Amino acid sequence: MKQKIWYTYDDIHRVIRNLAAKIQASGMKYDAMIAIGGGGFIPARMLRCFLDIPIYAVTTAYYDSDDLGKVTEEVKKVQWLDPVPEVLKGKNVLVVDEVDDSRVTLEFCLTELAKEDFATIGIAVLHEKIKAKAGSIPAGMPYFSGITVEDLWINYPWDAEDIDEHNRLAAESST
Amino acid sequence: MKQKIWYTYDDIHRVIRNLAAKIQASGMKYDAMIAIGGGGFIPARMLRCFLDIPIYAVTTAYYDSDDLGKVTEEVKKVQWLDPVPEVLKGKNVLVVDEVDDSRVTLEFCLTELAKEDFATIGIAVLHEKIKAKAGSIPAGMPYFSGITVEDLWINYPWDAEDIDEHNRLAAESST
Repeated sequence: MKQKIWYTYDDIHRVIRNLAAKIQASGMKYDAMIAIGGGGFIPARMLRCFLDIPIYAVTTAYYDSDDLGKVTEEVKKVQWLDPVPEVLKGKNVLVVDEVDDSRVTLEFCLTELAKEDFATIGIAVLHEKIKAKAGSIPAGMPYFSGITVEDLWINYPWDAEDIDEHNRLAAESST
Repeated sequence: MKQKIWYTYDDIHRVIRNLAAKIQASGMKYDAMIAIGGGGFIPARMLRCFLDIPIYAVTTAYYDSDDLGKVTEEVKKVQWLDPVPEVLKGKNVLVVDEVDDSRVTLEFCLTELAKEDFATIGIAVLHEKIKAKAGSIPAGMPYFSGITVEDLWINYPWDAEDIDEHNRLAAESST
């Protein structure tokens, strides 16, 4: 069984602060964020505290796809920027997600967004898992992560039915 | 000067848990959330932990509007569900926001969404401020709030540059 780790909201807020500092240190000015929902919503809203740029949202989901009797999982758009608002055309956008795990969703979103008229597409993820990636990031896209983490099962506070128990497990797992 | 209050992420997570319980106790089953960005993003993602329904997003902003030399503030769409996805048509949706303050943004969003083909449009807000409202909620829409609060200046943790200082102020203000 995969080892588990718990992060508190405050842990994550501090990581997002560092992530914002890395983005600012890069010298590139981003005009807007594009949060990948639902996971990217909380990181993006926390990031806005430091970057002070508007947040747009896209959402994808995995669907079972039956290809001649062989069922595979496929990423599909649930909500998209379709069409991309005029005000974003030619601008620098920062795609925000929770965790860079297999990179499949990330590759899908970046490849789709790369078809549009943006200047620079950057990527900002809260957690970058150190593991082999099934998906890849298109060449030339700046990539930022808050922290790199081992390939553990991450328990996010926003998935905690009981936040006090979650925080207790976070305190235990950090010692 | 308006009195201030500070809430921690954990405070808010607990309120969202109560909010979810109220929504479930109403007996109405919602098929999806529509988060009003950016404020509604964190409450909606926390709510998903308990309601387990997908999150769609819309965003509005205030713009200065010059009407024959008289500058007024006007709510406009930044991102919208335009068109509303087929899968949402005829369904029950829950519009989620951070705070029910003046109700101007909320009225704008609800009035716009009421033009579409939904069965029920419900409203779920984290905080309901006890004050006179400039905007109103269209008749017949179920309304849920996590807690009612005095008309104070609310400091949300996602606007805190220093989360430790924020938590210290929250602990002080709650005693």
